[in-house]
Amino acid sequence: MINRLVEKIKKTEAPIVVGLDPMMKFIPEHIRKAAFLEYGETLKGAGEAIWQYNKGIVDAVYDLIPAVKPQIAMYEQFGIEGLVAFKKTVDYCKEKGLVVIGDVKRGDIGSTSEAYAVAHLGKVAVGSRMLPAFDEDFATVNPYLGSDGIQPFLKVCKEEKKGIFILVKTSNPSSGEFQDRLIDGRPLYEIVGEKVDQWGSQCMGEDYSYVGAVVGATYPEMGKVLRRLMPKSYILVPGYGAQGGKGADLVHFFNEDGLGAIVNSSRGIIAAYQQEKYEKFGAANYADASRQAVLDMKEDIAQALAGR
Amino acid sequence: MINRLVEKIKKTEAPIVVGLDPMMKFIPEHIRKAAFLEYGETLKGAGEAIWQYNKGIVDAVYDLIPAVKPQIAMYEQFGIEGLVAFKKTVDYCKEKGLVVIGDVKRGDIGSTSEAYAVAHLGKVAVGSRMLPAFDEDFATVNPYLGSDGIQPFLKVCKEEKKGIFILVKTSNPSSGEFQDRLIDGRPLYEIVGEKVDQWGSQCMGEDYSYVGAVVGATYPEMGKVLRRLMPKSYILVPGYGAQGGKGADLVHFFNEDGLGAIVNSSRGIIAAYQQEKYEKFGAANYADASRQAVLDMKEDIAQALAGR
Repeated sequence: MINRLVEKIKKTEAPIVVGLDPMMKFIPEHIRKAAFLEYGETLKGAGEAIWQYNKGIVDAVYDLIPAVKPQIAMYEQFGIEGLVAFKKTVDYCKEKGLVVIGDVKRGDIGSTSEAYAVAHLGKVAVGSRMLPAFDEDFATVNPYLGSDGIQPFLKVCKEEKKGIFILVKTSNPSSGEFQDRLIDGRPLYEIVGEKVDQWGSQCMGEDYSYVGAVVGATYPEMGKVLRRLMPKSYILVPGYGAQGGKGADLVHFFNEDGLGAIVNSSRGIIAAYQQEKYEKFGAANYADASRQAVLDMKEDIAQALAGR
Repeated sequence: MINRLVEKIKKTEAPIVVGLDPMMKFIPEHIRKAAFLEYGETLKGAGEAIWQYNKGIVDAVYDLIPAVKPQIAMYEQFGIEGLVAFKKTVDYCKEKGLVVIGDVKRGDIGSTSEAYAVAHLGKVAVGSRMLPAFDEDFATVNPYLGSDGIQPFLKVCKEEKKGIFILVKTSNPSSGEFQDRLIDGRPLYEIVGEKVDQWGSQCMGEDYSYVGAVVGATYPEMGKVLRRLMPKSYILVPGYGAQGGKGADLVHFFNEDGLGAIVNSSRGIIAAYQQEKYEKFGAANYADASRQAVLDMKEDIAQALAGR
């Protein structure tokens, strides 16, 4: 799957992943109204609104981008019905040829970690049958529990030719509280980064490994160091746009070949119509605003990479 | 909810939580067969088997124990239908008067962490209504992302009078890979433990805070240190039984008042009938075997506490 992701990035010339993190306040009123009219102000109504909203965005941008990253928390908060919308979104994006990165940040140990890996990337045994559950292409994983938590994911990745992105240095202001603490003079995120490189060496694709890393756009200097520590790992870069990361900050996350990183934008794309820059589209044409925002982001990154 | 947990522990005299982590291999054949006969070898059939199996155990042990801890990964691997079984289990256990600790190990940042907190402990806005989603009483949380990931949980805990258990030192063999690394001469888990104490001081119940910690029974010496560092935090102790933790190891996790810790056992209870010690019950009476295993565990812990 990492080979497919790289190929799609080359083809679209857009190292971009659109974060499908649907908050109710992003969803245009006409979509919410229609869903509530059909199902009432219920969890099912909310799930329907999310699904229709997502579908509009995916239809408008799928030809421009290699991948999407639905954030499962935004669906899970609506319970079972929210997760039905998550699953519909995953399946629809795959139908449209997109690589789907499940932003699930799961992590546990042993058989429990294997259950998460199976839930999101693998197949589960039911009697004599093997059935997929959520079936994304990649999942994000939390490393705090160590190798016991990661190895079950690697096993499933090898079996299914899928991949993971491990949290290394997250984009939030307080990420340094634990991640930056010095261990023998080096920050914890570097120690985790080295493990990512080792784990990745156990499952290599053509040029990159099945094991990527999450490193926030908000920490470009740390990104530079981590880029060197994990040369074969794709870096998933959140924090561009709304969280303050800029195009120029992104160059450090890429390798010399212009590959090695994929930059996420969530609300900057999916709620573009709520920004002054794109308000002329209006809520009715929210998906066209998203398309324009993808084109602008693609240009911003291309310029930054050309200028280095 | 921490007050209610403490009260129930005192009343049952059992600082025990039963881990409802249903693996298919634990479920007696007669239950699996009946479920597959009704729904086929499908995810729905698996969900039904899990639910019937859980219900049998809960009916057999609910009067002996204060709490249960369903491990969501074991349900999530069966997709939507698995999560339907999870939700049914949560609701049923609450009906039976049990405190429900959702072992979800979620953790993210900002609005995403808030969405997880809402999903598991709070209520979500749908139009003009506020609706609960999974609605457990406690949830386990991963601290790797720092305070930005924890504060949204604290907010929901305060609103809803619920609680969290933060991963501090996990029970698995490789937990030391990152958690034991020395920072200014002290292991990372102590640094996290100190933060747990601080976060807890922001939301106190009567004697204990809403913010507990997960510390593995397999590391009793570290438990002793952490007990002192977080005097107002309940410690959720996994790793007893199948993972090798013994009754005698547990004393360090308790305060002098005999409170402050709750010990989890999963397969040791729910799959007791598969152990030599309880095989006389047979698969048909698996729930009676679970009841006996709870009684034995209660005795084991009581003896260890009496002997200190």
